[in-house]
Amino acid sequence: MSYNLAIVGSTGIVGKELINLLEDSNIKIKNLTLFASEKSVGKKIIFRKKSHLIQSLNLQAFKDVDFVFFAANSEISKKYIPKLKNSKMYIIDLSSAFRENKDIPLIIPEINSQVLNTNKSNIIASPNCTTTIMLMAIHNLHKTFKIKRIVAATYQAASGGGKKLMDKLLFDTKNQLRNPKSQDNLYGFNLFLHESKLNELKYSEEEMKMLLEAQKILDDRNIKITTTCVRVPVLRAHSIALNVEFEKTFSIELIYKILKKSKNVKILEDFKNNKFITPQIASFQKDVFVSRIRQDISNPKAIDMWVCADQVLKGASLNAFQIFETIIKEHLI
Amino acid sequence: MSYNLAIVGSTGIVGKELINLLEDSNIKIKNLTLFASEKSVGKKIIFRKKSHLIQSLNLQAFKDVDFVFFAANSEISKKYIPKLKNSKMYIIDLSSAFRENKDIPLIIPEINSQVLNTNKSNIIASPNCTTTIMLMAIHNLHKTFKIKRIVAATYQAASGGGKKLMDKLLFDTKNQLRNPKSQDNLYGFNLFLHESKLNELKYSEEEMKMLLEAQKILDDRNIKITTTCVRVPVLRAHSIALNVEFEKTFSIELIYKILKKSKNVKILEDFKNNKFITPQIASFQKDVFVSRIRQDISNPKAIDMWVCADQVLKGASLNAFQIFETIIKEHLI
Repeated sequence: MSYNLAIVGSTGIVGKELINLLEDSNIKIKNLTLFASEKSVGKKIIFRKKSHLIQSLNLQAFKDVDFVFFAANSEISKKYIPKLKNSKMYIIDLSSAFRENKDIPLIIPEINSQVLNTNKSNIIASPNCTTTIMLMAIHNLHKTFKIKRIVAATYQAASGGGKKLMDKLLFDTKNQLRNPKSQDNLYGFNLFLHESKLNELKYSEEEMKMLLEAQKILDDRNIKITTTCVRVPVLRAHSIALNVEFEKTFSIELIYKILKKSKNVKILEDFKNNKFITPQIASFQKDVFVSRIRQDISNPKAIDMWVCADQVLKGASLNAFQIFETIIKEHLI
Repeated sequence: MSYNLAIVGSTGIVGKELINLLEDSNIKIKNLTLFASEKSVGKKIIFRKKSHLIQSLNLQAFKDVDFVFFAANSEISKKYIPKLKNSKMYIIDLSSAFRENKDIPLIIPEINSQVLNTNKSNIIASPNCTTTIMLMAIHNLHKTFKIKRIVAATYQAASGGGKKLMDKLLFDTKNQLRNPKSQDNLYGFNLFLHESKLNELKYSEEEMKMLLEAQKILDDRNIKITTTCVRVPVLRAHSIALNVEFEKTFSIELIYKILKKSKNVKILEDFKNNKFITPQIASFQKDVFVSRIRQDISNPKAIDMWVCADQVLKGASLNAFQIFETIIKEHLI
C-alpha cells in the first residue's frame, strides 16, 4: 500500500520533525502535500529526494489525501477540521482543539491504541506534550496499582511554545549575558509559570490538560492530579517531578520491573555517580526516560520519580507519527 | 554599643553580601576581621570607608571578636567552630555542619527567634537556603492550620553552589550557544537533580535538609515532607512549587490574610495579566515572594503555591545578618 499524506504546519518545529520521521520510515508515500502559513508559501522542502512546494492551506488540495496531520495551532484545527470531517481521510490533530471532545479518540499508541478499534472516528487527537510524557511513565503502574492522586511540577522547554519561544530564549539569554542585572529579559536565566490562560480555579490551561487528558487516556475519571506547570530555560525536552500515590500495595522492586517492561520507556540512573536523566540527554531521543524512583518518605502509599523526554518527538511529532503507523498496521485503512 | 566582628569566607558570594548588609546597617562595628582561603589572602576590601586586609583563618585573630559569621563550607565549620566553642563570642554558622545538632539553635528570626531566649548556646546555625525560603512562606499557615504533609519540587539557582557553579552556568551557556547540539555542557540550557550526596533512601542531602531542618525550626517532628530538588539554569533566586496539606479546615481567603500579615513575605501576582513572581524579579530582593495560591483540585485539604526568593540574601546572608541583629536587639549580648 502507498498513501497520500498532507501536513498542515509543515515548517514549524513539530512539522519539520514529522517530515523527518516520515522520511526515515519504510511506509510508502505517494504524495506529500505540505501546507504552511503565508511567509513560507512558495518555499520548497526536499522529501525523499524530491522537491515539495509549500502551499497555503486550501480545501481543494485535500482531494485524494488519505492522512492529514494538523501540526499548526488549535485555531487552524478548529477552523479547518470540521470542514474535512465528512471525507474519508484520517485527520491526526496535534492541537488541543478536539482532545476533550468525547467522540474523538485521544491516543498514545503505547497506552490506548485499542480505542481505535471501537471508535471509528476519522479525527484522532494526539495529546498535550507534558501529559504524554507523564502518562508514558505511569500508565503501566496505574494498571497494576491504580493511581489515586498525582502531584506534579513541570520543567517545560521552550519548544512547547514553538520556534518563537525558542528564539526568545536564545535572544533573552544573549541579552542577559550582556547585561546581567537587567530585569527585562523574561526568559534569560529565568523561569516563569506556564503562560497559558488561567481558569476560575487559578489553574492554567496546561495544568488542566494534564488532568483532563490523563483521565480520558487512562479511561478513569477518578484519578486526581494537581500540577504546577513552569517554563524553564531549556530548549526542547520537558522534565517532570512526579509524586504518585497508589490505591494498592506496591513495592519499589515491582515498580522497576514494570517500568523496565514498559515500551519506549527507559530507566536511566546511576546512583553511584549521582547521575540521572537531564533534558539535554533526553533531547533528540525517542524514549521517555525515568529516573530516581523512590519510596516517598512522607507517604507509604506514594513514590517520587523524575521523568524527562523530548517535547518535539514523543511530546508531539513522534506520537502523531505512531498514531499514523498504528492505523496502517492495524489495517484500519 | 560597638562590636568586633569576623567573617570566615568573606570573599564568597554570601560573604560579600554579608559585608554589604553590615555596611548598610546602623550597627556600630569596631573591628571587622575578614578571613578567606589562600587565593584571597592579602587582598583588601573597603568597608565603611576603611581598607580591610584579608587574612587566612587563624585562631589567634579571634581574640576580641564578639561575633563571627562562618560563611565558608561545612568542612571549615566542623574544623574550627569546636575550637572556638568555649569562648564568649557568638558564632553564627551558615553551613550545614551543626544544623541538626539538638543543642544548637537553628534560627529563622521571623519564625523561632524565641529559641534564643531559652537556649544559651553561643553557636547558632542559619538554615539551608531552600528550607528557609519554604518556611518563610508557610510557617504562619502551619501555626493556624497545622501542616500535615508537603510535596515540594524546587527550581534552585546556581548561587547555591557558590561562585564556581554560577561561573559554570555562564561558561556552559556560552558554549551551548556556540555549539547547540553539544551534550557536554551540563549546565547550558539544561537542568539536573541536585548534586548533593544521596542517602540509602535515594534522597539527596538537600532533600533531607528540607525535611529535618523544617521539623526542627517548626518544632514539630510530625510534619511530613517529600521533595525533589533540582538545579535550574538561573543565577541567584530559588523557586519552589509547594503542595501543602493541612490538618485543619482552611479557606483561601484566610490563607491570603495570614500571608499578607507575614513579616518579610510579599504576595506578588497579577491574575488578569497572567504575571507572577519569577526568580529574576526576586533576585536582589530581601522579601520572600508567594504567588498563585490555589485550592488544590486533587485534595480539598491542600493548596498549591509558588514561592521565589533570593538565595544569597534571605536564603543565606540576610538570615544570618538577622540572627546577629536579633541577638543585639534582644540584649542577649
